[in-house]
Parts: sequence; structure tokens; C-alpha cells
Amino acid sequence: MGFKAILREIVEESGGGLGGVIMGYDGIAIEEYLREESGVDVQTMTIEYASVLKEIKRTVGVLKTGDLEEVSIISERCCVIVRGISDEFFVSLVLPADGNFGKARYLLKRAAPGLREELK
Amino acid sequence: MGFKAILREIVEESGGGLGGVIMGYDGIAIEEYLREESGVDVQTMTIEYASVLKEIKRTVGVLKTGDLEEVSIISERCCVIVRGISDEFFVSLVLPADGNFGKARYLLKRAAPGLREELK
Repeated sequence: MGFKAILREIVEESGGGLGGVIMGYDGIAIEEYLREESGVDVQTMTIEYASVLKEIKRTVGVLKTGDLEEVSIISERCCVIVRGISDEFFVSLVLPADGNFGKARYLLKRAAPGLREELK
Repeated sequence: MGFKAILREIVEESGGGLGGVIMGYDGIAIEEYLREESGVDVQTMTIEYASVLKEIKRTVGVLKTGDLEEVSIISERCCVIVRGISDEFFVSLVLPADGNFGKARYLLKRAAPGLREELK
């Protein structure tokens, strides 16, 4: 299963997910799957967050608490969940504020090994 | 109930929480409650994350998705959950990697209005 198919599965199964992106910490996307009716600029959002994630990754490195696994950022109107898939790339899922946060975390965790395989 | 008592309640009720800190986005702590046996430098950790949180707050502002409510950063050995309590301050709880993430989120959400009152 390729990147696009994995992203589609995560977004569709999440029930309400607005879109998913696989991206490098440099802000360059490898693949994305966006729900047409989302009304949220998922790609801009992920690019904006990529530089923040790079900084979080650096901080986690300084603190020596092991590799960065997951970051979630919840604001009033939406929720972004990010899972690291390699030293260079992450996958992110954007949900509306009332989305199923627990299920989304589970879906990203479940998909990570497959995405890691695809990156090889 | 003062800041210290609220923090103690959050940390003790979380079952395994290593410590809690109320801090400004400028990295200056107002109050903290640390479990003695935690073995993790909760304060250093929160100071390191404060600058990252400031950046996240700025990014959320740029994206216009409403106020920042919660951030969680999970690494291999520990998990930091942060909840905004005002435009200037946040409360954070540090858990071991196997801590009860859902309960910790609930406790912070429950405590936020009380902390907001104390800040007035």
C-alpha cells in the first residue's frame, strides 16, 4: 500500500478527519490526502507546524528523553496530531475540534510501521 | 485553593505524574509541585518547552484556528501535557511514558478554570 492509500485510510477511518500529510521536518510534503469539503487549509497548517516540530524534535534531543513519538496541538477549532515516522519525516492528521482524538492517535500509531516501510 | 494545592492534586490524582508546573510563555515559573522520586528534571524540561510553546501559540495565531488549548509532546521516556490557562500562562504535567494520558488530559482540563480564577 502506497503513501496516498495509507493516508486515505487514516483520514476516512478517523470519522471526520479533514486531511493527512506526510512531510519532512523541512516542511516539504511527500504526499497528502485532503477531504474536499474540509474548508481548512491542511497543507498550509502542516507547513506552518513543520518548523515548530523541528524545534520540538531538537528540544526532545536536548532533554535526552528518547526519540520524539507524537505531538498534538489542540486549538479551539481544530486539532493536529503528528507522529514521527523517521528521523526526517512525520505523518500528520488534522481533525475538527470535536473529532475523535483517541481514535486518531490510534490510527496514526497503527499506520507508522507501514509508512516507515514505504520510506525505505 | 492556591496554585500549589491545585498542582499537587493534579500530580497525585494522575497516578504516576512526575510533576506539574505553572509557567509563563516567557519560561518563568509561578509555581511547581514535583514528586521527589521522579528522577526527571521537570523544571528544566518545562523551561526548554516554554519557548517551543510560545512558537506554537504564535503559529496557532497565524492560522486563525482559535485560541491554543492543549499541547502534548510524547517521547520514548516521557510525556508532557500542557494546557493554556491565559494569554500569558500555562500549566504542564509531566508523566512517564506509560502514564495514563487520558486521565492526565482530563485533570488539566478540569483544573484550568480554577487556575484561571487564581490568576485574577
